[in-house]
Formats: sequence, C-alpha cells, structure tokens
Amino acid sequence: MRNFTFHNPTRIIFGKGGVARLGPEAAAAGKKALFVYGGGSIKKNGVYGAASASLAENGITVTEHPGVKPNPVLDHVRAGVEKAKINKCEMVIAAGGGSVIDEAKAIAAGAAYNGDVWDFFTGKAGIKDALPIFTVLTLPATGSEMNSGCVITNEASKQKFSAGSSRLFPRVSILDPETTMTLPEKQTAYGAVDALSHLTEGYFSAADTDVIVTDELVQALARSVIASTGRILKDPGDYNARASMMWSATLSLNGLQSVGYGGVSFTGHAIEHSLSALYDIAHGAGLAIVLPALFKRQLEKTGPGRLEKFGGAVFGTKTAGETIEAFERLFKKIGAPIRLQEAGIPASAIPKIAENAMGLIKLWGINYDRKTVEEILTKAV
Amino acid sequence: MRNFTFHNPTRIIFGKGGVARLGPEAAAAGKKALFVYGGGSIKKNGVYGAASASLAENGITVTEHPGVKPNPVLDHVRAGVEKAKINKCEMVIAAGGGSVIDEAKAIAAGAAYNGDVWDFFTGKAGIKDALPIFTVLTLPATGSEMNSGCVITNEASKQKFSAGSSRLFPRVSILDPETTMTLPEKQTAYGAVDALSHLTEGYFSAADTDVIVTDELVQALARSVIASTGRILKDPGDYNARASMMWSATLSLNGLQSVGYGGVSFTGHAIEHSLSALYDIAHGAGLAIVLPALFKRQLEKTGPGRLEKFGGAVFGTKTAGETIEAFERLFKKIGAPIRLQEAGIPASAIPKIAENAMGLIKLWGINYDRKTVEEILTKAV
Repeated sequence: MRNFTFHNPTRIIFGKGGVARLGPEAAAAGKKALFVYGGGSIKKNGVYGAASASLAENGITVTEHPGVKPNPVLDHVRAGVEKAKINKCEMVIAAGGGSVIDEAKAIAAGAAYNGDVWDFFTGKAGIKDALPIFTVLTLPATGSEMNSGCVITNEASKQKFSAGSSRLFPRVSILDPETTMTLPEKQTAYGAVDALSHLTEGYFSAADTDVIVTDELVQALARSVIASTGRILKDPGDYNARASMMWSATLSLNGLQSVGYGGVSFTGHAIEHSLSALYDIAHGAGLAIVLPALFKRQLEKTGPGRLEKFGGAVFGTKTAGETIEAFERLFKKIGAPIRLQEAGIPASAIPKIAENAMGLIKLWGINYDRKTVEEILTKAV
Repeated sequence: MRNFTFHNPTRIIFGKGGVARLGPEAAAAGKKALFVYGGGSIKKNGVYGAASASLAENGITVTEHPGVKPNPVLDHVRAGVEKAKINKCEMVIAAGGGSVIDEAKAIAAGAAYNGDVWDFFTGKAGIKDALPIFTVLTLPATGSEMNSGCVITNEASKQKFSAGSSRLFPRVSILDPETTMTLPEKQTAYGAVDALSHLTEGYFSAADTDVIVTDELVQALARSVIASTGRILKDPGDYNARASMMWSATLSLNGLQSVGYGGVSFTGHAIEHSLSALYDIAHGAGLAIVLPALFKRQLEKTGPGRLEKFGGAVFGTKTAGETIEAFERLFKKIGAPIRLQEAGIPASAIPKIAENAMGLIKLWGINYDRKTVEEILTKAV
C-alpha cells in the first residue's frame, strides 16, 4: 500500500428538498453569482425554479450562463469567464450534470486568472485561485461534484483535455435524488458506465495491488452501482435506488477509490476523450466501447489476476475472460454500445482516433504508443 | 435512504515517513503548541523523537502534556486546558491512539472556553470554538483522527461521556502504518473490535435499511478489518496489512459508515462505556463482551434480516444465529474476551453497570430502559 494524501473539503447536502439550501449556503460567499446550466432540463424538473428562488430569497443576484453542451466546449467557457469578470461575480453556481459542473469549475478558475483559461488544460499554467463553486447535481455519473478536476473540449483543436486544482473542489454540492427521477434510460445507463470506469481504471492500473481496503471499497461501490442501476431500469421511480446510485457515483471519483494504489492511469478515459472529441458521442457510451477492449489488452499484458479478483467479487465470475464478458453483457443489458460500429464509428477511423488520443496520453504521462492504442481500438471493432 | 449532510475537512497524510511532515503542516497554525501524549510508547517507537524534531525545525515551541490514560480522564484534561491557556498555545498536537487524540480534542475545546470543559460533555454548553488540532496516530481503532467527537471519563462521577463539534475535526492527521508495527497483539485485536463496532452499531440500528451503497461500504470495511487483522496476527511485520487496517479503522468512523441510515444508535458503546468507566478495561475488550449480547437482543426484537445480510456478506454465514456465532468466534480467535467473567466482572455487577449506563443512554436519546440493559448484559454472562 503506497503513501497518499487525502483531503476532500466539499460539503455534501444529500436528499429530498436539498435545493432550497442553495441560497443560504451560497450567501456566505457573496452577493453576485454566475449561474451555469445546460440545455434547459433543469427548467423542466423544477431545479431552475427552486434554485433561482432560493438564491433570490438570500439576496444573491444572478448572471445566467445557460447552454453548456454535454461535452462542454472551450468557447463557451471563455464566454462564461468574460461574463463573470464583467459582472464582478463572486462565485459560480452550477446546476446540472458533470458537464455543467466541469464548465463551472473552468470558469471559476478562468475568472481568477489574467491569461487564457485553456492554459490550465495544456499545462502552460497551474490553477492558483478560483471563485468559490457551488453545485446542484442532477445526473449521477462523473463525480465532479466532489472532486477537483474538470474536462473541457477545445473544438478548434479537437482536444478534450482536463485540468485540476485543490481550488476546484466545490464548496457545497447539493445532491437531491428526486431531481434524477425523470432521467432518460440512456443517461442513467451512461452514468453507471462512467462510475464503473472511474472505479475500474484505478483498480486495473494500480502500481501496488496489495491494498485490501481500497480493493474492498472499489468492489463494494461497483456492486452498488450495478444493483442500483438494475433497480432503476426496472422502476425509474425507485427513490432509494436513485439515491444509492447518486451517492455511489460521487464516491467513485472523490479520491477514496484509488488511495494506496500508487500510480494509476486513466487510459480508458484518454482514449474515450478522443471518441467524444471527434464524434461528440456521450462519454458513457464511449467508455462502454473502450473499456472491454482495454481490459482485453490488460489481460494479454498483465495477466488475469486483477480481472479475476474483481469479477469474483462483483459478478461472481471465475476467470478473467468471464469478467470481461460480464462487463460486456452488463453494458449491453443497460443499453450502452460496446463496439465502435454501434456508435456509428467505422473501423477505418481508428488511426485518426489513436492519433488524437496521443495528445492526452502524453499529457497524462501514460506509457502507451500510438500502435498500442490502435491495437486496443481494433479490439472494439 | 434518508437525507444527510457529509463534510469531513481533515487532511490525511498516510504512509511511511509521514511524521516528518508534522512540523511544516503545524507551522501554518502558529508557533506555540501543546503536545499531548500518553505513557511513553511514542518514545520507544521513535514517534516522539521524529515529531519533536519536525516541530523544532519548523520553529514551533512545545509545552508537553504527557500521561494520557487509555480511558482519558477529566482531571488530566483540565490540567491540559490550564497548561494551554497559561502558555498561550495556538494549537494542540496529539501523538498516540484514540485516547490521546480524544483528550487533545477536549483540551482544544476547553482552551477556547471560559467555563469548565466538562460542560461540553453533559450538554450544559456547546463547543463554539477550539484550537486547531493536529494528530499523529499510532493505534488504529477509534477513528478519532478523522472525526469530530471525543470521549472523556469523569472519575469522580464515574461517567464516561462524549462531546462533538465540527470544530473538533483535526486539521491534519498523520497516519504512518510503520508506527503500528510494534503494537502488542491485544491492542491490535481490540482496535479491530472497535472498528467493527463502529461499522455494526450503525448497520444494525439503521432507521432506514434500504441503503444499498452504505450497506456495501460497511460490509467492505468489515471484511477489510477482518482480513487485515488476520494477516497482522500471523505476521506482525506485514506492512500492507497494517496499512489496510489503519485506513479501514479511520474510514469506519469518519461519517461515511452511516450516511443515509437516518437515526443510528450507539447502544453497544453506551453500555461498554460503563464497563470501562467502572472497571477500567480496554474499550475494545468491553465491546467484544457487549456486542454479541446486543446482537442477540436485536435478533429477538427486530428479527434476523440485518444480521443475515451482514453475515452473508462478511462471514459467508446463512442465518442470523450463525452471524452472531461468527462474531464470537472471531473475537475469541483474535484474543478478545466475549463474556463478563473473562474480564473479571461478576454477574452480580450487572445492576450497577446498567444503572451507570442509563446516564449515556438518556444523554444519547436511546430508547432503552434499565431492565433492557440488564437483560442484554445477562446475555454476556
């Protein structure tokens, strides 16, 4: 078990009616907020109304920044930074899924910086400061509501890159499972795939594999994600399953899921980011395609041990091959694609995807060359 | 799944050589510290030397407050508060196990208060402020290093009471598993019992039992505690097992272990505190006696469901009765007493213990009368 530091200062307000607490919490950070959201689903599910009312009641004036895309783009981030600066916003409030929260984080960092916000994503500059961030989560998936990272796509350069800083932990995140009751099946499924990817990417790339406690936690969270999703797809109105799914997804990328493993690699994410940067598919859909292929590669290169252990604990399978099959069966069952063609991506695109992926792979220090990435993608044909 | 708030701001520095980081971390809080420790084991295992050197190198002057007892007592807390006030200490540093950390927390609160520190334990006053707290943990068990509570014994009134406040979260806790390598078998075993008690008290008293994610986490941590302890007792020099045990015990009472359960009761702790207040036995030993008796009572009153679920996931047992037997077998195997007589406590003492326990049971709002407590203790004969 390797040395680690763990510090997660985000305050979580979890449960029914939580949105009403946004205003009182945010009031501690000032009087002017940039309010970031997406395509308007929060207007249908009542979150927009409840959040706006709570902010107004607590004397907070809002500059709206709607229109965040599912894969949030740099131009829109830059526009948000401008708005925040011009309106002298003292905080950024996000209401939506991981994309909205990621964009809010990028804006919060950009608003406290004199250069171009993309500098943080290319490594040209580090994030030294950021406006306080408050979030209302409406889609369990990315874990962004309780971590310090964000992912933004530069449409011009076709780069989907990440940035992180302890300044980006949301100060408060409000998780009300009732806001997720009307989520479409696809989004529920993709959220589950994303949470499982956060759990497995660390587990299968751990530099140190003798970490009883973290292995147990990862396996437990994976079982919880799978069981909760199964219940939700049977009965979308199952509040307790929605709640377990929401908290499981948060815990799947809040830092706990990889402590003690030493170096871990997010290779699946690095490759998937290219799929969604080039084809604008849902992150969870891309991961369902990439992960089984990546696991097959890991089985060839590092042996069956970890796949066997995970599969035994989570699926009740016996061999590494059966574990990979169980993942594929699960993804198919919940409605996610598991091959490139199912997402409309031809095998002939593999060289282009691999070339694009090398950007993040190098930036994240992953020891894979382009040929290896092509080999992995070929397993997803 | 019930509503909850989760916020745990303690920074954890985990791993080999961590003690050297005490001084740089503490320096952010000032130049004068009260240094709290126990009977001198930290002088044998090198922690005292390393911590003192790190503090001195970072310009921190120390007032020592040694001699904390395994069940820390109020008079010694009061003496610490006096020292901290007289020497104008800006922080409290604890090096030791849960008792030392608990006393340091009580002193930190008392030093920022004009009345008697015992007021916080009887409910006469709430903790509004406290000096910053830094800890170096040397005994995995209580979880005090990453939570906001503390337990102190008033020897005069024979009351072992608790206090809590968000101001009592340690600012930084340093967990170096190497400092636990020389722990006696008994302390390793009692630590494991304590961690298991923190996990099971919530699990078995949950007001809401449809919480997939927390059930999974509790079961995972219990398996980790049991597996780690088994390896440690076979090979006390097994670093990775020591490390997993240390982190498991911390996570077993940092708040995660009961979120969503709604009301949980620490009935086993309430009864055990009387055993150790009256007989000064180790907390873990007392818990190993009380818990199986409490589980037998719960089986009679609330049915087999939770015991069956936990046992199936942790011990591979089938019935609730088998789960209780598995706990008893485990406690015996690791060297903990499971009956009052084994700790030298006669059955004739039960009325006196039950009477004492009613103090905490009322203070914590547990709906048990004295007769019920006597019935539970009778099952431990």
